[in-house]
Amino acid sequence: MQANERARPLRVGVAGLGRLGRRHAQNLAYRVPGATLAAACSPLAEDLAWARDVLPETRPYRDYAELLADASVDAIWLVTPSALHAQQIVEALRAGKHVFCEKPLSLDVGECERVVAQARRFPGQQVTIGFMRRFDPSYHDAFAKVRAGAIGRPFLVRSQTCDLNDPDGFFVRFAPTSGGIFLDCTVHDIDVARWLLGKPRATRVFAAGAVALHEGLREFGDVDNGVAICEFEGGKLAMFYASRTMAHGNDTSSEVIGTAGALAIGRVPRANRVEIHDAHGVRSECTPTFFERFEEAFLAEAQAFVAAVRACQGGAAGTMDGSAQGATLEDALEATRIGSALRESLRTGQAVTL
Amino acid sequence: MQANERARPLRVGVAGLGRLGRRHAQNLAYRVPGATLAAACSPLAEDLAWARDVLPETRPYRDYAELLADASVDAIWLVTPSALHAQQIVEALRAGKHVFCEKPLSLDVGECERVVAQARRFPGQQVTIGFMRRFDPSYHDAFAKVRAGAIGRPFLVRSQTCDLNDPDGFFVRFAPTSGGIFLDCTVHDIDVARWLLGKPRATRVFAAGAVALHEGLREFGDVDNGVAICEFEGGKLAMFYASRTMAHGNDTSSEVIGTAGALAIGRVPRANRVEIHDAHGVRSECTPTFFERFEEAFLAEAQAFVAAVRACQGGAAGTMDGSAQGATLEDALEATRIGSALRESLRTGQAVTL
Amino acid sequence: MQANERARPLRVGVAGLGRLGRRHAQNLAYRVPGATLAAACSPLAEDLAWARDVLPETRPYRDYAELLADASVDAIWLVTPSALHAQQIVEALRAGKHVFCEKPLSLDVGECERVVAQARRFPGQQVTIGFMRRFDPSYHDAFAKVRAGAIGRPFLVRSQTCDLNDPDGFFVRFAPTSGGIFLDCTVHDIDVARWLLGKPRATRVFAAGAVALHEGLREFGDVDNGVAICEFEGGKLAMFYASRTMAHGNDTSSEVIGTAGALAIGRVPRANRVEIHDAHGVRSECTPTFFERFEEAFLAEAQAFVAAVRACQGGAAGTMDGSAQGATLEDALEATRIGSALRESLRTGQAVTL
Amino acid sequence: MQANERARPLRVGVAGLGRLGRRHAQNLAYRVPGATLAAACSPLAEDLAWARDVLPETRPYRDYAELLADASVDAIWLVTPSALHAQQIVEALRAGKHVFCEKPLSLDVGECERVVAQARRFPGQQVTIGFMRRFDPSYHDAFAKVRAGAIGRPFLVRSQTCDLNDPDGFFVRFAPTSGGIFLDCTVHDIDVARWLLGKPRATRVFAAGAVALHEGLREFGDVDNGVAICEFEGGKLAMFYASRTMAHGNDTSSEVIGTAGALAIGRVPRANRVEIHDAHGVRSECTPTFFERFEEAFLAEAQAFVAAVRACQGGAAGTMDGSAQGATLEDALEATRIGSALRESLRTGQAVTL
Repeated sequence: MQANERARPLRVGVAGLGRLGRRHAQNLAYRVPGATLAAACSPLAEDLAWARDVLPETRPYRDYAELLADASVDAIWLVTPSALHAQQIVEALRAGKHVFCEKPLSLDVGECERVVAQARRFPGQQVTIGFMRRFDPSYHDAFAKVRAGAIGRPFLVRSQTCDLNDPDGFFVRFAPTSGGIFLDCTVHDIDVARWLLGKPRATRVFAAGAVALHEGLREFGDVDNGVAICEFEGGKLAMFYASRTMAHGNDTSSEVIGTAGALAIGRVPRANRVEIHDAHGVRSECTPTFFERFEEAFLAEAQAFVAAVRACQGGAAGTMDGSAQGATLEDALEATRIGSALRESLRTGQAVTL
Repeated sequence: MQANERARPLRVGVAGLGRLGRRHAQNLAYRVPGATLAAACSPLAEDLAWARDVLPETRPYRDYAELLADASVDAIWLVTPSALHAQQIVEALRAGKHVFCEKPLSLDVGECERVVAQARRFPGQQVTIGFMRRFDPSYHDAFAKVRAGAIGRPFLVRSQTCDLNDPDGFFVRFAPTSGGIFLDCTVHDIDVARWLLGKPRATRVFAAGAVALHEGLREFGDVDNGVAICEFEGGKLAMFYASRTMAHGNDTSSEVIGTAGALAIGRVPRANRVEIHDAHGVRSECTPTFFERFEEAFLAEAQAFVAAVRACQGGAAGTMDGSAQGATLEDALEATRIGSALRESLRTGQAVTL
Repeated sequence: MQANERARPLRVGVAGLGRLGRRHAQNLAYRVPGATLAAACSPLAEDLAWARDVLPETRPYRDYAELLADASVDAIWLVTPSALHAQQIVEALRAGKHVFCEKPLSLDVGECERVVAQARRFPGQQVTIGFMRRFDPSYHDAFAKVRAGAIGRPFLVRSQTCDLNDPDGFFVRFAPTSGGIFLDCTVHDIDVARWLLGKPRATRVFAAGAVALHEGLREFGDVDNGVAICEFEGGKLAMFYASRTMAHGNDTSSEVIGTAGALAIGRVPRANRVEIHDAHGVRSECTPTFFERFEEAFLAEAQAFVAAVRACQGGAAGTMDGSAQGATLEDALEATRIGSALRESLRTGQAVTL
Repeated sequence: MQANERARPLRVGVAGLGRLGRRHAQNLAYRVPGATLAAACSPLAEDLAWARDVLPETRPYRDYAELLADASVDAIWLVTPSALHAQQIVEALRAGKHVFCEKPLSLDVGECERVVAQARRFPGQQVTIGFMRRFDPSYHDAFAKVRAGAIGRPFLVRSQTCDLNDPDGFFVRFAPTSGGIFLDCTVHDIDVARWLLGKPRATRVFAAGAVALHEGLREFGDVDNGVAICEFEGGKLAMFYASRTMAHGNDTSSEVIGTAGALAIGRVPRANRVEIHDAHGVRSECTPTFFERFEEAFLAEAQAFVAAVRACQGGAAGTMDGSAQGATLEDALEATRIGSALRESLRTGQAVTL
């Protein structure tokens, strides 16, 4: 990487300046060696005012087409509403940009397939979907250990995405467009499972769910707690759990079980290294949201994307490590395919064969 | 209990003196206030020799009928092969004895139903099936907390029974009669789930499995790792995992999740309170088998059974606490019913409606 | 042990029926193979009434001399006030009894020495002082690992005895006779340190303390939190902490550090295997008092004492394992010697050379 | 902070480009908003070559005087050998620069006092000594909780600095100039204790030590394991442990005990959130060195220093938060004073009154 630090920086344009978009923008502006945040795009005046204040050297755009037309921008960073992702990726590719896009690629399998097909026409441009868990230092360590054979042959992943309960039920209002708990939350666990198990093809899924607290979800066929089993070819398995109703914090954890051992990642969602001893016993406070839990991962995925693109630009042959680590469009397609099957199973009460 | 210590002790006769039978026999002989081990029965000369040596005041019997004919015996403790349980329970009840029987009641749902029907004819006699987890101090504490409302309304149980891998694969030879991994192992988790969730009725199950190490299981349609989902009425759920191939020890744990919190039981299967700091990191050694893990539970269930029977004998009205805590024949029937449906789902790859 | 189960049981007489005395009495009556509780002695009518109720087969005595005169009693179990221990041990030895005595032997070094000298005249009689931590399964496992070389050469022990704060400050009223925090609490840690380090001789100590909550201790020169360092010959070290003011429970833990690793015992004083997930985070409830923490140890030390005496009676040569594991009078003398030096150091603010 | 991002960045010059110096240089160059690394100084050609390669926009200097003469440099970052710190701080102040200096200020109390006196003449210039633990997120959280009253009145700190054993014993060669284990390692724990206890004045100390593995230390009067007690005014206490011989990693932890609870920081030195389940049990790998453990703290202290200086430049009145959090020259003087007394106590075997 040292040599690259002298090369021309990668000029990134962020599209979307909501809470997560701002996080990405600040990372790219101040914390990613080899990158500059050249431009930022949002249709909202408030977002652009924020950008002018915090990112004074970044060109503001109101319109996505303008951003794409900025020839000085090398790469687009999409943190826009999910429904826009597919179309915006394709447009960015056509404009000659590398693309990083927040998950999900699309809630629709057909649309995912169309993006995959389009992207094949631009082999020299990097496209990565933001399954950030792969860049969390602990997930990354587990992945490396699995690859090194530390647990023999991995055959089962258990993974969960559990959010602190929001008594206001923001996600209930979001339910009509979220795709449901499996496409919104479990999609991360699906990607983790495929990644840790060597990307096997899913063959059958079953899902069930419960509405524990948020009755408003029922009209959308959604649940606030969902459980699922996924069978893969080669006798591999995954179990998933997603919840919107945790009392203690964001509890995202995974476990990969092999023939010679197992690795658990994030089993206790400690906020930090402090243990409190008081009348409640001995306790750890928990990460309140995925922002605190995956702060390092969001930064590391940006660093890896930038490093990978610059390495290719620098003339390095083959696929870069950073690139290999991130989720491809094909990975994102598979995650949507499996998540959609889980939604179908929840609806029908039957196992769904893929 | 103090008053009872002065009452006539309960005279127990153990049938079956294998490894677990001997454990029960020694508990009853030396560690259960209010009980004496009056008799022990086994068809094996070696077992009877052991009994004569270790339990000199206990009458030895070769034949189960002889044991039942011993009028001085108040209660029968069955630790015999599973296939004999149903018939032996009925015979013991007819002989006027209270009965404690190791799990499972029977691998056959119809046979379970017949025992339940028979037992209704002997309302004055206690029958308990040995789901010992209910008597483990930690499971018991969790149950009490759930009942006290500590986690709001419980709606999801995750529970696992995972054994240290036995390279010799003893259980492979046992596979033709074990009923398969769900009826042999998961039956404990099923009982735990029903117990913690307030005994809801199961409505649908799905199961899948993998053969990770023990290929010999395939010919019996069995697996060495199984996963399952069980839906209950009222929107309650359970997820199960059973494994015969753990590298680190017997890892039996459960979790009950409610609307206001969750309780995890036995998450790290620590053998004791020692932490080792060395070149491997910071580590806890694990309980090697269920014997070490549930040593206290086996004793506590015996103490509870004896206390419950003696309390009834002492004229106490109503159902005793100890009795209420143990698994009834109906509980055992339900566990077999659900376990059988899981086996069916594993075989067919389809969800099974109950 | 099996052979011994057939031998004549050891007939034990308990002196002292306070809270801990009653625990010992019930253990000896119902849970120690090879022992019967033949007699129980207390000057208090209330204690004897309790004994008659709970231990109907045990002969009650009001007077210690009567207990000693009971020729059918083989061993005396002293749970009397500390000030009586030394004299009562000597009297019991003279009456031909084996003796188990709760700690401390005496708060006075000279008196300890006199008992040691007297006891040498009765080599065939077992005398054990109740440093029960040695019999806790986790302490015992750590000791075995140290002996097996798991951590190389052990050179440092850190050990603490910390009690849940009692807002009523019972121990303040007890302060005039307790000997102070080091002789009352740290004496256990001193014994643990000597035991784990191979019984080295102490050479120098330093102690300091603070009154955090219980101002009433100042008039007795005592503190409610004490810290100390003890140097042993051969360059071995110990650090001690004692507290009466914990908010979370009884927190008794120890650590032994060697040249190739370290063992921590009881670092989180979990009450059991339940973890609670709620608005406070992820937490374990703690053992409230030493009773819950050392319940198994109190039973195991009784079993070991009885087994050791019976093994000697059975003609076994040499010192028995159970005997070797328990604290001898010499161990108790050393604990009092070091504890007294700590008290002296606290008083003077100077290091004390032994 | 947002407003400051637009202000002129703080131009920093690093002196010293060893392992830790390079870490600081890269943080300042790429990861500290509001700072630019304007210059880097080292007498070693190898260091300057590294700087030219990795920090192409940074001016290299061979001589410290030249660095001070660079008028475009606002602040000096000293990561030079400890023996140079005191003089270099004074020179930098005289040259009109703000100063950040790695610990220790000096191993000599008199020299510390002279720097404190000199610095009083430059009240407009920030001087911070790099006790980075204060900036570790977990230490910082504990500090905030103590300040918020979460544990009542804090009265006891236990703190340790324990390094993974280096079989090559690098620090033995370093022993003649390190000041010994207490001035080299425990000085961090001393600062933590004073910080968490509200900066009380130390009144008496006692120390002892052992040579566990590195016999070569004896000739310098040093040890590879040291323990100490420090009494402060107001009845506050600290216990310290320092070791160079750990088998499991860098184990830096602290505990602060108050009248209503306690906080433990870093009790298990987990490298990350992965737990390994294998034949060794359930384990966490550990942070190998203080670099991995305090990576975030080194960055956060740089960010806080830069933010504090820029806030003052921006005309903000009074002392800034970032400034208040970092260790002052007076804090560093006290740490050296207490560390020196510990060394004296180790030498004499007597308590030392301050």
